[in-house]
Amino acid sequence: MDKPLRIAIAGLGTVGTGVIRLLETNRDLLTARAGREIEVTAVSARDRNRNRGVDLSRYAWEDDMTALAAREDVDLVVELVGGSDGPALALARASLGAGKHFVTANKAMIAHHGIALAKTAEAHEAALKFEAAVAGGIPVVKGLREGTSANALERIYGILNGTCNYILSKMEDTGADFGEILAEAQAKGFAEADPTFDIQGIDAAHKLAILAAIGFGARIDFDAVRTTGITQVKAADIAQADALGFVIRLIAMADTETGEDGRTRLLQRVRPCLVPKDHPLASVDGPTNAVVAEGNFSGRLLFQGAGAGDGPTASAVVADIIDIAREEIGAPFSIPVAGLEPMPPVEPGHRMERTYLRFTVTDRPGVLAEITAAMRDAGVSIESLIQKGRADDGGEVLVAMVTHEGPERCIKEALDLLDGSESLTDAPLVLPILRD
Amino acid sequence: MDKPLRIAIAGLGTVGTGVIRLLETNRDLLTARAGREIEVTAVSARDRNRNRGVDLSRYAWEDDMTALAAREDVDLVVELVGGSDGPALALARASLGAGKHFVTANKAMIAHHGIALAKTAEAHEAALKFEAAVAGGIPVVKGLREGTSANALERIYGILNGTCNYILSKMEDTGADFGEILAEAQAKGFAEADPTFDIQGIDAAHKLAILAAIGFGARIDFDAVRTTGITQVKAADIAQADALGFVIRLIAMADTETGEDGRTRLLQRVRPCLVPKDHPLASVDGPTNAVVAEGNFSGRLLFQGAGAGDGPTASAVVADIIDIAREEIGAPFSIPVAGLEPMPPVEPGHRMERTYLRFTVTDRPGVLAEITAAMRDAGVSIESLIQKGRADDGGEVLVAMVTHEGPERCIKEALDLLDGSESLTDAPLVLPILRD
Repeated sequence: MDKPLRIAIAGLGTVGTGVIRLLETNRDLLTARAGREIEVTAVSARDRNRNRGVDLSRYAWEDDMTALAAREDVDLVVELVGGSDGPALALARASLGAGKHFVTANKAMIAHHGIALAKTAEAHEAALKFEAAVAGGIPVVKGLREGTSANALERIYGILNGTCNYILSKMEDTGADFGEILAEAQAKGFAEADPTFDIQGIDAAHKLAILAAIGFGARIDFDAVRTTGITQVKAADIAQADALGFVIRLIAMADTETGEDGRTRLLQRVRPCLVPKDHPLASVDGPTNAVVAEGNFSGRLLFQGAGAGDGPTASAVVADIIDIAREEIGAPFSIPVAGLEPMPPVEPGHRMERTYLRFTVTDRPGVLAEITAAMRDAGVSIESLIQKGRADDGGEVLVAMVTHEGPERCIKEALDLLDGSESLTDAPLVLPILRD
Repeated sequence: MDKPLRIAIAGLGTVGTGVIRLLETNRDLLTARAGREIEVTAVSARDRNRNRGVDLSRYAWEDDMTALAAREDVDLVVELVGGSDGPALALARASLGAGKHFVTANKAMIAHHGIALAKTAEAHEAALKFEAAVAGGIPVVKGLREGTSANALERIYGILNGTCNYILSKMEDTGADFGEILAEAQAKGFAEADPTFDIQGIDAAHKLAILAAIGFGARIDFDAVRTTGITQVKAADIAQADALGFVIRLIAMADTETGEDGRTRLLQRVRPCLVPKDHPLASVDGPTNAVVAEGNFSGRLLFQGAGAGDGPTASAVVADIIDIAREEIGAPFSIPVAGLEPMPPVEPGHRMERTYLRFTVTDRPGVLAEITAAMRDAGVSIESLIQKGRADDGGEVLVAMVTHEGPERCIKEALDLLDGSESLTDAPLVLPILRD
């Protein structure tokens, strides 16, 4: 048996202590699978004296987490502090720069600095691994890096934010509105006190940018992810979608197309979408995550499981550690950094979509004529339309429609024509329909 | 860039030619991901002159496939011939014995000889990989070997045979009976001319034995898989299950328990089961496969995709080749052979299950009393019971019931009490209900 793999852990919140519990609980099994012992030698966190329910007395303590990178008794540093920059990034740079393997659950840092860190890792022949950064316990980084490695991928998409999925599927089950369910989710710990990153789609965008880089061999371009959150989705939209045979899910999607200049362009989007009820993602409920990869030989593959939580996240962190112990390492983004293409973003106006549109309007003559005229003038072809009075809402009326497939820009043109109309009492909601 | 990885392919049926097509179609991408070229140098098949739609003229030809193992210009042999013994096994032994890496889609051979072959591979520091042997294009061998490697698994189960799943879900959609749908599946190419291995559950049993070995660190014990096929499932059962909130799927399941002697025992079963409609496996339709792994930290993970077909199978074969090109190899069954435990099979009589029972009986007084008395005498507690006359079937009557949870042995005892009863016109059907 090889000598132990000596690890240091920075950050001892629920995930950090989860990793320590996992390493203790499954010790024998991990040693067998890793082919060597995995031994925690040092830890660091903000508060040394907090009771975390695990015995830390056997490990060396560093007040300054960056010092972990310099320790001679550490082969691998695990970063579970979070934050795209600051101490986490300093630790990543110092660890990889010192030739130490580095494992992290930090999606924001990888989405912003993953390429630079991968370069440092390559230069120092160290591993950089981040399975836990995307979709919690689901081995989807490995799934794309290795499982689908024989394929040119056509699309990567999925449900990457458990908070949003909990809220949407709960709205579906109860008929309650967004704000009410968000408050409930916060009370239950399924949503943060400040839920902005989740409900605005930013968390999902971080994860999508990472998956897109791996799946398409692209340089991560987080800033190019077009992101729409779920705050505008009403209970009435969910009811309407249901009647049409759909559920609403926050879908993160990446695909590529070849521009007129011959360059590959990358489209990355996080949007609430209408998902047909017979699509595998439609039955993904609660805080579950799921990722679909469509390969040119594999066809459609689905990976599903818990997207967050200390157990699942620790499972992913330790899977990375075992890979490293087994010396199964390789390029963090599947191919070496020099081979990753900078892919300009797609301007999606020409892309064909079926779309769900919802207007809230005043109840007076001519409103429907105004909306349908705008659609006609912008070249939007309507497949079905329903107008519904809402007795409880003082004359507010809902107009929902589904369009035939058409270029996205036409929808935008139609909405521009209606912009400033006195008939509309709220901004219209536009939800694409997920193509099967 | 490293020097090319030189491969030989034995077997040029749809999968073999699929592999060649994949290697050609995705060549640049594979080179980038593998870090070196993957170059076919030699091939072998039964008939040299058959037109396979791919150009074989660039590759050396061997009439005797075992000769591939001896070629100096081959680093890796791909076996796509099939059959648990015979030429495939001879080739595996010769290849690994010569220190050549070996990739196969041959579930029967791995289920019967996987441990011996892994030992040979270890002795000669060669890779033995078989992602394509289980669940076609779904990376579930990797998923268990690496993705869930941090977990003690509680259960591994899933839908591992596409033919059975096609038949069962088609019966569900159409209300037609088994024989009719089987004939249709054969006409469409979803079932073999001789479908025995599929519909009797043997194919699923091969795959399950492989997954159980990886997931539980057990020596493969294919002979211990308790297997029941789907031939006894009637349209009426599916309708009855539907009314109760279930679908019927052929479920392969493995789990472990500790015997009174302190040894770990392995239960491996392939059986048609009632699956609750809100379980992820209930929505797996058609020839799709899906595997669930429940880890003590990861929670429930689901892997889903195409379980067969030349594209998905080629995708899995080439993923293995890329792993080898990247030198990410390791123990075929996750831990070295010496560490794999021989686990005696569980005798499942004491295990607690809810069960669906269906009797076909003659329509005469006292039948129901006879059946329910047998249940009472065997200690089986009935949760619900329905008796249904079948107008079209000349007095044949269906009695279906669901039991409360109880030990399996009681069900057997009840059926023993009814054995030989003149009231029963057919063998009773026993379907366990999948525990959520």
